[in-house]
Amino acid sequence: MTTADARTPASKQNDGTPDGTTPDAGTPNDGAGKSIGWHKGYVQGSRPDLRVPVRQVHLTNGKHVTLYDTSGPYTDASVDTDVRRGLAPLRENWIIARGDTEEYAGRPVRPEDDGLKHTSPRGGLRNLDAVFPGRPRQPRRSRDGRPVTQLAYARRGEVTPEMEYVAIRENVEAEVVREEIAAGRAVLPANVNHPEIEPMIIGKRFLVKVNANIGNSAVTSSIEEEVDKMTWATQWGADTVMDLSTGRNIHTTREWVLRNSPVPIGTVPLYQALEKVDGRAEELTWEIYKDTVIEQAEQGVDYMTVHAGVRLPYVPLTARRKTGIVSRGGSIMAAWCLAHHKESFLYEHFEELCEILATYDVTYSLGDGLRPGSIADANDEAQFAELRTLGELNTVAKRFGVQTMIEGPGHVPMHKIKENIDLQQEICEEAPFYTLGPLTTDVAPAYDHITSGIGAAMIAWWGTAMLCYVTPKEHLGLPNRDDVKTGVITYKIAAHAADLAKGHPGAQEWDDALSDARFEFRWEDQFNLALDPDTAREFHDETLPAEPAKTAHFCSMCGPKFCSMKISQDIRRQHGGSREEIEEGMAEKSKEFAAAGNRVYLPIAD
Amino acid sequence: MTTADARTPASKQNDGTPDGTTPDAGTPNDGAGKSIGWHKGYVQGSRPDLRVPVRQVHLTNGKHVTLYDTSGPYTDASVDTDVRRGLAPLRENWIIARGDTEEYAGRPVRPEDDGLKHTSPRGGLRNLDAVFPGRPRQPRRSRDGRPVTQLAYARRGEVTPEMEYVAIRENVEAEVVREEIAAGRAVLPANVNHPEIEPMIIGKRFLVKVNANIGNSAVTSSIEEEVDKMTWATQWGADTVMDLSTGRNIHTTREWVLRNSPVPIGTVPLYQALEKVDGRAEELTWEIYKDTVIEQAEQGVDYMTVHAGVRLPYVPLTARRKTGIVSRGGSIMAAWCLAHHKESFLYEHFEELCEILATYDVTYSLGDGLRPGSIADANDEAQFAELRTLGELNTVAKRFGVQTMIEGPGHVPMHKIKENIDLQQEICEEAPFYTLGPLTTDVAPAYDHITSGIGAAMIAWWGTAMLCYVTPKEHLGLPNRDDVKTGVITYKIAAHAADLAKGHPGAQEWDDALSDARFEFRWEDQFNLALDPDTAREFHDETLPAEPAKTAHFCSMCGPKFCSMKISQDIRRQHGGSREEIEEGMAEKSKEFAAAGNRVYLPIAD
Repeated sequence: MTTADARTPASKQNDGTPDGTTPDAGTPNDGAGKSIGWHKGYVQGSRPDLRVPVRQVHLTNGKHVTLYDTSGPYTDASVDTDVRRGLAPLRENWIIARGDTEEYAGRPVRPEDDGLKHTSPRGGLRNLDAVFPGRPRQPRRSRDGRPVTQLAYARRGEVTPEMEYVAIRENVEAEVVREEIAAGRAVLPANVNHPEIEPMIIGKRFLVKVNANIGNSAVTSSIEEEVDKMTWATQWGADTVMDLSTGRNIHTTREWVLRNSPVPIGTVPLYQALEKVDGRAEELTWEIYKDTVIEQAEQGVDYMTVHAGVRLPYVPLTARRKTGIVSRGGSIMAAWCLAHHKESFLYEHFEELCEILATYDVTYSLGDGLRPGSIADANDEAQFAELRTLGELNTVAKRFGVQTMIEGPGHVPMHKIKENIDLQQEICEEAPFYTLGPLTTDVAPAYDHITSGIGAAMIAWWGTAMLCYVTPKEHLGLPNRDDVKTGVITYKIAAHAADLAKGHPGAQEWDDALSDARFEFRWEDQFNLALDPDTAREFHDETLPAEPAKTAHFCSMCGPKFCSMKISQDIRRQHGGSREEIEEGMAEKSKEFAAAGNRVYLPIAD
Repeated sequence: MTTADARTPASKQNDGTPDGTTPDAGTPNDGAGKSIGWHKGYVQGSRPDLRVPVRQVHLTNGKHVTLYDTSGPYTDASVDTDVRRGLAPLRENWIIARGDTEEYAGRPVRPEDDGLKHTSPRGGLRNLDAVFPGRPRQPRRSRDGRPVTQLAYARRGEVTPEMEYVAIRENVEAEVVREEIAAGRAVLPANVNHPEIEPMIIGKRFLVKVNANIGNSAVTSSIEEEVDKMTWATQWGADTVMDLSTGRNIHTTREWVLRNSPVPIGTVPLYQALEKVDGRAEELTWEIYKDTVIEQAEQGVDYMTVHAGVRLPYVPLTARRKTGIVSRGGSIMAAWCLAHHKESFLYEHFEELCEILATYDVTYSLGDGLRPGSIADANDEAQFAELRTLGELNTVAKRFGVQTMIEGPGHVPMHKIKENIDLQQEICEEAPFYTLGPLTTDVAPAYDHITSGIGAAMIAWWGTAMLCYVTPKEHLGLPNRDDVKTGVITYKIAAHAADLAKGHPGAQEWDDALSDARFEFRWEDQFNLALDPDTAREFHDETLPAEPAKTAHFCSMCGPKFCSMKISQDIRRQHGGSREEIEEGMAEKSKEFAAAGNRVYLPIAD
């Protein structure tokens, strides 16, 4: 992020004074996106159709602060969004212009795609809002089977519009983005069938990103809820969203989510594949899995978690564990391996899978199916054996031009966290690490957003590129709207704390702007700069509801005559105001005392 | 903490099978303390009147887990508590038996003690419940002016009942406690005028402790609320409580809090002293301050924050800062120094202050009045100049036999946290560090329990002995009951995460017990072992309300046919159940694969 009076490399590159829409933009809404005091702006790129969204916060002192914005067109008053129509295909022309993809008939949608064995799609979908009605589209894929991935382009030295877009978002030179992607140290998840996304990048050289999981399950929740959870999550700052639906209508739910998502969407194809065999892991086959991957790639899924590292020889390593295998994908593959006493079909068909993903630019998220599910199991033989295999697969994926990131734990006590990121970076040639937490203790169900937020901040500081959020409902139930918000905010805190610790250029300007507002009692600015303006304002109003309190030169903690900030300011005033003047005046005083001898201890006068 | 089947050093020392009260102990109440599934137990010490409270959690598998308990007699059904009478003076006989203290008339209570200038106490107290009615008492102090501190006893080689008490609580030998106190690496805050407390210890060698702040202010809140907040905080795990009242009736509020508190109480005498001069810092004098310290010492305050490190020469160092001086005590002393252009009266009279505290065994908490209030000000010249002075004062305090801990920041980004604890330990001869957070970013008002919980866990891992909690209302308003609970739970998480990372003996047994329950779907055990059983149960019920769900072998996250833990268990069952048996069977399989050659990548079969 950058303050407007300190123009950024990005804006310099792109003569980019944000072409602001009106300050009171945004239709009324309870989301952060629509709070008064800021508006959606854009930084113009090198071409008319390349405009990077930013959040312009207007301060009462006339300055403004520009923040990274993930909320999509939904917070732009000048854009008329409609979930039934979907978002505009922002990247479509960029993809077509590359001339390396073609549209094709695609795989016919079948009832079982929605988990509706033996019933007609229509009948099975009766309980839905309806199949997504939005613009007709045919899937797109590589014209000649060669990779159409950002990795392939970067290696060829091409700076794609997507790369320029993220360069502006991250305030770095486009060449830096290309280099990081080419080296495999960063990924830019962007399926050619998901032109609606606002490109973003995941890599340790860039801002730490946050993923939010959504997804209905056999037990509860509906399509509308999932789409709403997605927009709700991105409004609060989620950089990507994973749709982990496992119940019915997963194909249709995914279609709605994809067509309306401004951020990359990730999935775990294995979940849907298992639905297709009625949850019987042993009945899974490479063909069913492959069919599911193609189905999802044609829809536009940007990255897929693949548990190809769960190999038969590793399963016994989990027998000694306190909590065995806690990853759903991991346990499914382990069950399959044991049932057939054969090596994982994902591991054995990995090269074929690479060929498929490369033709859509689906990014690998190599799953850690053997991640520890308890403090006791952290950093054990099973976990690291799988990590070494993920390292092998990462090399294979790169050979096929597929972008790849690596998933990480889990439950890990603080003193064992660093070993995880260090090993992963070494074994996986610095491929982006994408971690769940880690949770630093097992004893606080209902507060695992906090037990994991602690570990997330630390591992991100040490190099993790993206954090998968954990909500208060972890281990207990499915997150509702409030849980999603709490999870996202907690992880945005962890991510930003890490950006600060990494000394990410510009990161501290946000803290400085808020602290200045705090010191100068600019309450409204403090609220508008907060990660969650609504709750900050609400908490303040609980003690000091009156409007004047918003400009009061004291806080409710101390009261009128007792405010330390006020006293600090009085100190300045009574000494001529400017910090420099006090400096001088006081410097003398302190010299006197130095002269009087800064003795270890001044004896009592009397 | 320890599981009963693995008996602890402490219980071995004290043939201590907890003499359990009935399992359904506790009067109905919404607090954690009263949840079904556990009861208050005691470990018998070497003398009849030395019984250490523990929380006995009864598991459905017949085992039970013993946890550290801070909730006091309020959670013991066999004890009839009454806030108007106060708690029983547990330590009175121990104090009397030492024969080094005497009762005396004490300082008469004046209207201004309650901030009621020019009105009669009674009139001024009309808005109160009434002056505390409990048992009549006279203050007690050293008979001959020599220190009656745990530090003095420890140095003489005496193991006091208080030391034996904490040894049992911490599961260490009493001699270890004595040594740590004697060396100044730990403090056992226990004013001779606060015999109601259950002794506890603060030092890096022991469990990380958590302090909760309460206190009314000029703006809001009442006596009853403060007493309730205190018992509420200790019920959730607060190890000490600071009464930071600044409004009216502070003397009376404090009396009620002290007489009803099972944990040590801390204060900042400067706040009350300032009230006595109508908030005019420049009118403060050593005499007014000294009188206030004696007033509070006679009431039984166990530790006092003293901002004697804010010296005149350091004030100009804050002028360049983004947020100046954010500590109330620090800003008051700075204002005084500037108004008089004189060195701090606290610094100049520090030895006299030591003499006073030593005669009551009040522990110093040397305040960091110049702590950073923003990321930008972290680890600056002003902060470290004060720390060096605190080091000097720590040496002086020890010379006078006064127990001492050192307060720490504040707002500090992750990469600058370790320097704080390392410097403090070096400069202050390993005196216990007592830190506020630190907050790892400024951008999340309303979530500062989380921004600070991250820093708190890290600095505790590195050696901080006690953490001062931060609530969601930090920077915004006064915490209410829910905020206090959220703050305490968040900090208990940080403290326990640190105990795990430090490898504190027995710490992981708690996590292991909960993870076993989780893996075996013993939902009730999971809830009862949780830091907050009520919320864990409530969240689970939101998705699966039915009672059977509490014994269901799946969670709402995955649903019946999709649970990874269930699959893990099936893996075990289908392979003969016992972990060992699978081990064998599977080991062969894995040998086969090793034989087949664990090649870097297995080529596709077909």
